[in-house]
Amino acid sequence: MRVFDIPGFPNPLRVRIVLAEKNLSSQVEFVKVDLPAAEHKQPAFLSINPTGTVPVLQLDDGTYIAECTAITEYLDNLDANPVLTGRTPKQKAIIHMMQKRAESELIDPVGIYFHHATPGLGSALQAYKRPDWEGRTAWGERERGRAIAGMRYFDGVLSQQPYVAGDAFSMPDITVWAGLLFAGFANITIPEECEALKAWRSRIDERPSVKNPA
Amino acid sequence: MRVFDIPGFPNPLRVRIVLAEKNLSSQVEFVKVDLPAAEHKQPAFLSINPTGTVPVLQLDDGTYIAECTAITEYLDNLDANPVLTGRTPKQKAIIHMMQKRAESELIDPVGIYFHHATPGLGSALQAYKRPDWEGRTAWGERERGRAIAGMRYFDGVLSQQPYVAGDAFSMPDITVWAGLLFAGFANITIPEECEALKAWRSRIDERPSVKNPA
Repeated sequence: MRVFDIPGFPNPLRVRIVLAEKNLSSQVEFVKVDLPAAEHKQPAFLSINPTGTVPVLQLDDGTYIAECTAITEYLDNLDANPVLTGRTPKQKAIIHMMQKRAESELIDPVGIYFHHATPGLGSALQAYKRPDWEGRTAWGERERGRAIAGMRYFDGVLSQQPYVAGDAFSMPDITVWAGLLFAGFANITIPEECEALKAWRSRIDERPSVKNPA
Repeated sequence: MRVFDIPGFPNPLRVRIVLAEKNLSSQVEFVKVDLPAAEHKQPAFLSINPTGTVPVLQLDDGTYIAECTAITEYLDNLDANPVLTGRTPKQKAIIHMMQKRAESELIDPVGIYFHHATPGLGSALQAYKRPDWEGRTAWGERERGRAIAGMRYFDGVLSQQPYVAGDAFSMPDITVWAGLLFAGFANITIPEECEALKAWRSRIDERPSVKNPA
């Protein structure tokens, strides 16, 4: 398998943590995509993933799989023991519900704020991500408030249970962790009173797959 | 099981089609949520689903499952024959990739356009969905263009294969179908030249689960 990505960025890290969790790190070859030069918005990369995002997984039969949730479903099911995406119908449902919330209420608003209300990744990428349309900054600032509301939501969840989807570590823990990492890049701070979220983050930071992702 | 929703709306229909596909229609009790009166944005409903969206599935043990993808995962796996969400790792990956694209490139932009650049559902809901912030209409119009680009993307996919995720009907077919329905409500027309998308839609319209959803 090959993974097209760039080390250290939030969404690529999501898949690299999954690879480490599933002991698949040695089975993947990484191909670096030059994000600051907007390589992922050029025709060659768009023929691999029309949405223009990293990471992308290429299977051994040549098939390209984009989107972190889809890549995680693939990798997690290879050994027929899908601990990250759920084994029972109810586990699958709760994990996918929390995964969607981790994206729509946290990592997506952070991304919009970062690309539309801050200098983002600089001028090369700005042409693609920050078109000069009326209201761009207002939109970004509005999403900043949504990201902070998302942090408060997950703080409430984690004050009731040890992990985002219940008693066990799973896919949405990785997504919330990456969302907080991205928020840090964008200078969006976790509210002081979100004690459960901060304690959970410290625990996840120490997880082997997070300390040593693929 | 109980489903909190309102008949005839795009996202509720997604789950009602799944129920029909899986022959589960008779096992569900429906509880109507008064969307035009913004019942889904009031505290009672937000305690069920903090994101404030319908549909929500309540399991027999009381657990609430929100988000169409999560509900579909639950219902599709009940009989251990997940034809809508994929049986093999590769099927699951392609289905979840296309599901994400159907949301982020079609139904989500349509929704943003509808709620932020048109009268939407009227004044009761407008207070929640159309705050009067600078750039609201520009943002909505930008998303209209993204929805049309999404239609062109799925037209390209469907010119190569019979269904959105390949050779068989699956979850993202339902999502694209609902996205086109929602686009119709918002007066966003399928581009004339998208012949494959229009032919696929006519075929899906005739599917028993779509003609007679739960």
